[in-house]
Amino acid sequence: MAQKVTPRSEDYSKWYTDVVQMAELADYAPVKGCMVIRPYGYALWENVQAGLDRRFKATGHQNAYFPLFIPMSFLQKEKDHVEGFAPQFAVVTHGGGEQLEEPLVVRPTSETMINVMYAKWIRSYRDLPLLINQWANVVRWEMRTRLFLRTTEFLWQEGHTAHATEREAREETMRMLEVYRDFAENDAAVPVICGRKSESEKFAGGVDSYSIEAMMGNGWALQDGTSHFLGQNFSRVFETKFLNDRNELEYIWQTSWGVSTRMVGSIIMVHGDDQGLVLPPRMAPIQVVIVPIWKSDEERAAVLGAVQQVQAALPGIRIRLDDRDGLTPGFKFNDWEMRGVPLRVEIGPRDVAAGQVLVARRDRVGEKKQPLPLAGLAERLPALLDEIQRDLFDRAVRFRTERTFYPTTYAELGEAVERGFAWAWWCGSRACEDKIKGDTKATSRNIPLQQPGGTGRCIVCGEQAAEQAVFARAY
Amino acid sequence: MAQKVTPRSEDYSKWYTDVVQMAELADYAPVKGCMVIRPYGYALWENVQAGLDRRFKATGHQNAYFPLFIPMSFLQKEKDHVEGFAPQFAVVTHGGGEQLEEPLVVRPTSETMINVMYAKWIRSYRDLPLLINQWANVVRWEMRTRLFLRTTEFLWQEGHTAHATEREAREETMRMLEVYRDFAENDAAVPVICGRKSESEKFAGGVDSYSIEAMMGNGWALQDGTSHFLGQNFSRVFETKFLNDRNELEYIWQTSWGVSTRMVGSIIMVHGDDQGLVLPPRMAPIQVVIVPIWKSDEERAAVLGAVQQVQAALPGIRIRLDDRDGLTPGFKFNDWEMRGVPLRVEIGPRDVAAGQVLVARRDRVGEKKQPLPLAGLAERLPALLDEIQRDLFDRAVRFRTERTFYPTTYAELGEAVERGFAWAWWCGSRACEDKIKGDTKATSRNIPLQQPGGTGRCIVCGEQAAEQAVFARAY
Repeated sequence: MAQKVTPRSEDYSKWYTDVVQMAELADYAPVKGCMVIRPYGYALWENVQAGLDRRFKATGHQNAYFPLFIPMSFLQKEKDHVEGFAPQFAVVTHGGGEQLEEPLVVRPTSETMINVMYAKWIRSYRDLPLLINQWANVVRWEMRTRLFLRTTEFLWQEGHTAHATEREAREETMRMLEVYRDFAENDAAVPVICGRKSESEKFAGGVDSYSIEAMMGNGWALQDGTSHFLGQNFSRVFETKFLNDRNELEYIWQTSWGVSTRMVGSIIMVHGDDQGLVLPPRMAPIQVVIVPIWKSDEERAAVLGAVQQVQAALPGIRIRLDDRDGLTPGFKFNDWEMRGVPLRVEIGPRDVAAGQVLVARRDRVGEKKQPLPLAGLAERLPALLDEIQRDLFDRAVRFRTERTFYPTTYAELGEAVERGFAWAWWCGSRACEDKIKGDTKATSRNIPLQQPGGTGRCIVCGEQAAEQAVFARAY
Repeated sequence: MAQKVTPRSEDYSKWYTDVVQMAELADYAPVKGCMVIRPYGYALWENVQAGLDRRFKATGHQNAYFPLFIPMSFLQKEKDHVEGFAPQFAVVTHGGGEQLEEPLVVRPTSETMINVMYAKWIRSYRDLPLLINQWANVVRWEMRTRLFLRTTEFLWQEGHTAHATEREAREETMRMLEVYRDFAENDAAVPVICGRKSESEKFAGGVDSYSIEAMMGNGWALQDGTSHFLGQNFSRVFETKFLNDRNELEYIWQTSWGVSTRMVGSIIMVHGDDQGLVLPPRMAPIQVVIVPIWKSDEERAAVLGAVQQVQAALPGIRIRLDDRDGLTPGFKFNDWEMRGVPLRVEIGPRDVAAGQVLVARRDRVGEKKQPLPLAGLAERLPALLDEIQRDLFDRAVRFRTERTFYPTTYAELGEAVERGFAWAWWCGSRACEDKIKGDTKATSRNIPLQQPGGTGRCIVCGEQAAEQAVFARAY
C-alpha cells in the first residue's frame, strides 16, 4: 500500500505537512527553523523561477548578486526598517577565527546594501531607470515555522529598482504587481486579489506596499508576493542621488518586490486534495507519467514499443516512465496521484492491441479513465494539459467565490472569517483593524485595487469609509 | 574617449581588476572580502550555470537545496574536514535577539549537512545511487581577496552523491570531472588538464581529489573545478548506512564536486587582451552588437530598416542594438570591444545601399572589417560565432603549449614556473613538493590523468618516480 495523507477535513495542518513530506517536496532540517528542499520540491521551485524570471527579463530587468552579509550599521540607518526587521536578525560575530569589529547581519532583505551600491553606480538620469533583480537566500529568525510557508532561511527573488521620478517608480511598483498576478493566475493557476496593504501590514521602511493574496483550501489567506513603493525613504538616508536633466542633484525614487518559496506552499494548498498534491501542468516537474503494464516478456516488448511511440510523439512534454520493478500498477497509480502528476497514461497489452492508451486526470481522480487512440496523442495530451490548467484555475476561483462573504454587521464579519474572506468597509484606522484581529484573529489582507465603488460605513466603528478591505485568517 | 584598461604586459593584476570593473562584471562590496556581481557578470555566470546544469541533468542529477547554517558540532565530526575549514568559518552566535546555545557556521561546503539528511532518507540499496546537486552561496573567510577568484562569499554548485559500491562512486567522481572538462573546453573555450590532486592539495576529508586546471594569460594556473571521491570518510562518522542486497548494513560511498564563480575569472584571464574582455560566443551575454550609423532622419529610417532585417534573421542569437544617443560610433566600438562582445555589426547608409553590413570580430581586433551581404546573414553570423568559439579554444591551446615546459633539472623547473606550466617527474613525497613551493612559490597543480608513460627520476630528490605532476604558480 502506498502511504495515505491525512484527509483535509480531519486536520488541514496535518494534511499539509503530510503532503509536503510524503510527496518528498521538503523535509525538516536539523537546524532550528530551517528546511531542506528535496529534488521534487526544488524542481517545482525551478518552474516558479523560470516563469518569473522570463517575465522579469521581458520587462527589462537584469539579474545580479549582492552580498549575504550586511553590516549592522547599514540596517540601522532607516528607523522603521531596523525596527521591523531587528527582532529577526541572525548575526555573525566571528570570522576567520576572530571577533569582528562590526557584527554582520545575514541579509533579511537587501534594500540597505542596494542603496550603498546604487549610490556608487548612479551618477545621472542617464543611468536611470536601474532595474535589477536578485535570486537569493534570506534569513529571518522564526520561532514557529512551517515548511515553505515560514522558515528561518528561505529562497526568494528581490527586485530593486531606481527611478528619476515618483511617477515612474509608482508605475514600476504596479507593473511588478501585475507581473506577479499574471504569473500566479496563468502559470500557478492560483487566483489572487491585488491590493494595497494597510499601514500596519506594509513593508518596514516603505511608503506603500501592494500584495497578491490567495485563498488556501481551508479558506485562509496567503500573501504570495509583494511590491513596494519605497519613495525616497532609503535614498535620503543613504544619500543615493543623481543629477537630473536640469543638472540638479536629486534623491532617487525606489521600488522593491519579492516572491519566495512560499509560492510553492500556495500551489500545494490551493490545488491539493485528500489524495495529496495536485499540480497545475505548467508548474509540474512531471506532467505525464506513463505506467506500462505487462505479464509476459512478449507483452513487455509490445507495451514498451507503444511507450516509445508515446514518448517520441511528445517532445515538449515533461514525461516520466515508471518502469520500476516489484511494484503493482495500483501502487504506482496511488503514488503518482499523491505526487500530483496531472496526467497518468496506462499502457497494457490490450491497449496496444486496440491501438490506444488509458488516460487518467489527476484533478478528476475516481472518474472513469479515458481511452485515447495512440495515433492522436501528440495533439490530445497537450490539449488535455491545457484543459487541466484552466480547470484548476476555474475550480480555485469557484472555491474562492463560495468562501467569500460580504458581511454588513460586525457579528457577520466574525462568522465570515471563520470560513473564508470577508470584504468589508473599513475606515482605515489602526484601532478598528486591531479590534478585528483581537476578536477574530483575522487581519486586513489588503485593500483591493478593484473596489465595489461608492462609500459605506466602517464595519467596526460605523464611521464613513471610502474603501473596502479584505479580512481573513492568514498564514 | 572610452576608458582604457591597463595593458597586460604592464601589470597583469591591474589589467584583471580593470577589466572586471570597467566591463561592469563585478564590484567591491562594502563588506570585507565580499563582491557584488553586476548584471553583465551575472549574465555570464547564468550562462555558466545553464551549461553545467544541462550536463548535470543529462547525467541523471537533480537539484535540491540544503540549509545555509550548519551546527558547529556537525563540522567537528570529521577530523580532517574541520581542520581544513575551521580557520575560514563565519559564525552566527546570535539569532532572534538571543545568544544561540550552539553556534551556527555559515556553510563553507555541505558534506556534513548532506550526510545528516542522507542518513534520514537512505534506507536500502534501492535508494541508491542518490545524485543531488545544489546551486548555492558559500562562505570561507578570506584575508586577501580578488574579484571572482577569491572572495569570502562566492556562488557555486556542489554535487553530492551516494553510492552502494566504491566502484560506482569512483566512476561518478571521474564522470563529473569529465563533465567539467567538457563544459570548460566546449562552452568556455578553456583548455584544461584533468588530474589527481596531491595529498597536500586534496579536499579536507576526502580520499582522492581530481581537478581541471587551466592556464591564465600570465602563465599561472587556475583550478576551475574539483571532483572528490570521499570514500566512506563521512558516512562512517555520520552513520550514513544502507541495507545492501544481501540485507547487511553498509556505509554509503560518496562523492562531491564543485565549480564556482571562479570560472568567470578563468574565462576573463584565458581570453582577455589589452583591449579588455574577449568572450567565447557560447558564454557571451551579448553575442552580436549592432551599431547603426546615420546623420539625417532619412538615413536613420533606412538604417533602422536594415537593423530590423538583421534582428529578424537571427532569432536564436543574443543581439544588442546600441542606439544610444550622443555617443560616437568610435566610442561605441571601443566600449563593446572592452566588454568582449564576439561580433560587431555596423550598418550605415552606404551599407544599406550596397545591401551589406560590416562585421568586426572581437578576437581579431584591428583587422579589416568584413563586408557581408545582408541576404546571407542568417547563415553567416552563426557560422562566424562557431568559428570564433573554435578559434578562441585553439588560441588558448597554442598559448598553453608555448608556455608548457618539460624541465629535466631542478634549475630548469625554477625557470619554467616563472613563465608557465612545468611537467616533471615527482616521487610523490610531501618534502619534495614543499621544497618546490618554498623555492619557487609554484605548487603541484595536479598529476595529469594522461601521463607520458614510463618512469623517471624525481626532479627534486632524484628518487624513482612513477608519475609526472604539473607545477605552476596558481591563483
